[in-house]
Amino acid sequence: MADRSTPGRQAAGRGATGKLIRGIAAALGAMLAATLLAACATAVRGTGDLGVVVERAAGRLQIVETTGMTRLATVDGLGDLSHASVVFSRDARYAYVFGRDGGLTRVDLLTARITRRVLQAGNSIGGAISQDGRLVAAQNYAPGGIRLFDAQTLEPLADLPAIGNDGRRAKVVGLADLPGRRFAASLFESGEIWIIDASDPRHPQVTRLPAGSEPYDGLVTPDGRWYLAGLFGEDGLALVDLWQTPPQARRILSGYGRGDTPLPVYKMPHLRGWAMAQGMAWLPAIGRHEVLVADPARGWQQTARVALAGQPVFVMARPDGRQVWVNFAFPHNDTVQVIDTATREVVRTLRPCRGVLHMEFTPKGEALWLSCRDDNRVEVYDTASLARIATLPADNPSGIFFTARAQRFGM
Amino acid sequence: MADRSTPGRQAAGRGATGKLIRGIAAALGAMLAATLLAACATAVRGTGDLGVVVERAAGRLQIVETTGMTRLATVDGLGDLSHASVVFSRDARYAYVFGRDGGLTRVDLLTARITRRVLQAGNSIGGAISQDGRLVAAQNYAPGGIRLFDAQTLEPLADLPAIGNDGRRAKVVGLADLPGRRFAASLFESGEIWIIDASDPRHPQVTRLPAGSEPYDGLVTPDGRWYLAGLFGEDGLALVDLWQTPPQARRILSGYGRGDTPLPVYKMPHLRGWAMAQGMAWLPAIGRHEVLVADPARGWQQTARVALAGQPVFVMARPDGRQVWVNFAFPHNDTVQVIDTATREVVRTLRPCRGVLHMEFTPKGEALWLSCRDDNRVEVYDTASLARIATLPADNPSGIFFTARAQRFGM
Repeated sequence: MADRSTPGRQAAGRGATGKLIRGIAAALGAMLAATLLAACATAVRGTGDLGVVVERAAGRLQIVETTGMTRLATVDGLGDLSHASVVFSRDARYAYVFGRDGGLTRVDLLTARITRRVLQAGNSIGGAISQDGRLVAAQNYAPGGIRLFDAQTLEPLADLPAIGNDGRRAKVVGLADLPGRRFAASLFESGEIWIIDASDPRHPQVTRLPAGSEPYDGLVTPDGRWYLAGLFGEDGLALVDLWQTPPQARRILSGYGRGDTPLPVYKMPHLRGWAMAQGMAWLPAIGRHEVLVADPARGWQQTARVALAGQPVFVMARPDGRQVWVNFAFPHNDTVQVIDTATREVVRTLRPCRGVLHMEFTPKGEALWLSCRDDNRVEVYDTASLARIATLPADNPSGIFFTARAQRFGM
Repeated sequence: MADRSTPGRQAAGRGATGKLIRGIAAALGAMLAATLLAACATAVRGTGDLGVVVERAAGRLQIVETTGMTRLATVDGLGDLSHASVVFSRDARYAYVFGRDGGLTRVDLLTARITRRVLQAGNSIGGAISQDGRLVAAQNYAPGGIRLFDAQTLEPLADLPAIGNDGRRAKVVGLADLPGRRFAASLFESGEIWIIDASDPRHPQVTRLPAGSEPYDGLVTPDGRWYLAGLFGEDGLALVDLWQTPPQARRILSGYGRGDTPLPVYKMPHLRGWAMAQGMAWLPAIGRHEVLVADPARGWQQTARVALAGQPVFVMARPDGRQVWVNFAFPHNDTVQVIDTATREVVRTLRPCRGVLHMEFTPKGEALWLSCRDDNRVEVYDTASLARIATLPADNPSGIFFTARAQRFGM
């Protein structure tokens, strides 16, 4: 007893066992720490240069970064992503993905995990996020309408069935966020533009404007002042000056070209892609091999047309407005053209790959990313040299969306 | 031996000791994990809604976020921050702080730590970051010149002494980033504008343009096309169309107001604050109680003047261009005025506090933050209601800078 209880022996005993325990604990601790730090290091990063690439067939997102031009992670389980679109939280951490099947999913770009997911409609065509980042709005084909959600929780706040003046439910297109916690949208069948004030998000107020026949998409200009809707049922566009009180829709560019001899339309242009550059609007002409240039300062009159290689789909201005890039409908969907907005001439015709579906500029426009659906890759171009500078593998990629959209209207 | 070596006893022995070891290891591991996770959780966040407030007297930065309108952390040890300015890395994680004492410091906004710091000059007046985010440029008073640094390491890459055509070294002002890895800057004493092509950052190429007498500050328009320098030595401004080949500086707004009866100038306006809204430039008139409105589409002619409460210092457009906010030189530096750009009228005169030094809009403009130097606080306004919605304590705050600047030219 005495022997075993002497402080010296105890200390020695503790010393031996303790050493072992401490050694093992230290080893375990180190392993744990390393694992945690690795996970932590992955997630600790700025989000200003992040983005997502939609892999439509796989129902998957790639998370990418535009500084090193690499893929960081993938996120599965997003449902039907054909025609999917994406908006971002104001801290640029979360992507809200609007799936064609009505799925609305909030993805954490830092941990590459789904944090919330709701099935909010049967057939959805995109969405928007409010100026203050607190509300997410979805535009639905079926049931036709607009639904508002809390951006944090995806709790439903309001449901606006798109019932037009004809008393019937319409498909909703062209939803865009406006300054002042408002949204604008268009109703296809009833030919209306709605301005939605969501100051009280559980009781949004709607101003209904007659717009024209079959608005098929819409956009808001980067300054949030003008809302434009393309009309499929007639030859022209509907325009709303959102600074006017009360706002009214008027017709512009009537007879701009579908007129006498309309060409078959292979793919509807996407108006979200309409570009503002050097104070002018660069608009894809439906069915024609042209971009129209219109001047907002002169009543939106047409000031020029630029002849192109095919029917334009996306017409996108480089952030500095010096270039406009255009992709095309089938059978010219292997082609991309670059217009110099100073000379209004095509300065380069690229044939990057088969099935160019979408394009996205880096925030300050030094590079452009484009998706090659049928060649299963994404390509990156230097917009100064027009040379390809990177290629990333992707499974049937469609939309490409960068987080800088969080800080711009109508994106 | 046999007893002690039976598998059963060994297992039991391992069971007892092992339990203890595992218990201790688990406890240590849990502590370690908790500590790491806490540190990690702090640092794992989006950076799109971050910003910094300069506490000039304390040589300290506050790191703030604009979603909840709170202070997240402070960073000390930044030297002399009077007249300090800040640019951001393209991933919106790092702030580059240009101190008056020539200190250039790279601060990690996520960990609130200084990651690099160099003393690069004796007297510095700000800087810029290249379009691709790879180069940081500092503009120095003494020794007069521009220095280029690797944005990652702050390794010096090039030193451009500002030696004008008169053979003497000038102070550099109005440094701004341009599309295509270029910068523009002005030389005060020699009256030159320099366009710097940093494609090869160790051997930048300089184009020198005679600009006029004593350019005291400069800016580039948000589209990167126009560079303007205010002239202190004569009544007008110098303008460069950067799309022109070769570029030339010409005089605009000659005789705009300093003319016949110049008022004493209490504080030079900051041209970085010049605002583009609705296609017009809103310019502080030196020494006069006015903002000038000029139209780039009509040769930069003056189209209007708006009378104000004092000598304007910063004239800043809300991102949608519907409002312009103005602060003033002493003795009107307790006042801020809001102009409606549609009617060109002052719609509100605020008296927030003593010593309003700087203002910054949130990325989509729903709020404006302003610094109250002499009242030791920062105030936040809702730009729709014009009501104050938050107040944050701050020690002699001056500049306020949000990370959205990373994605804009001239910021």
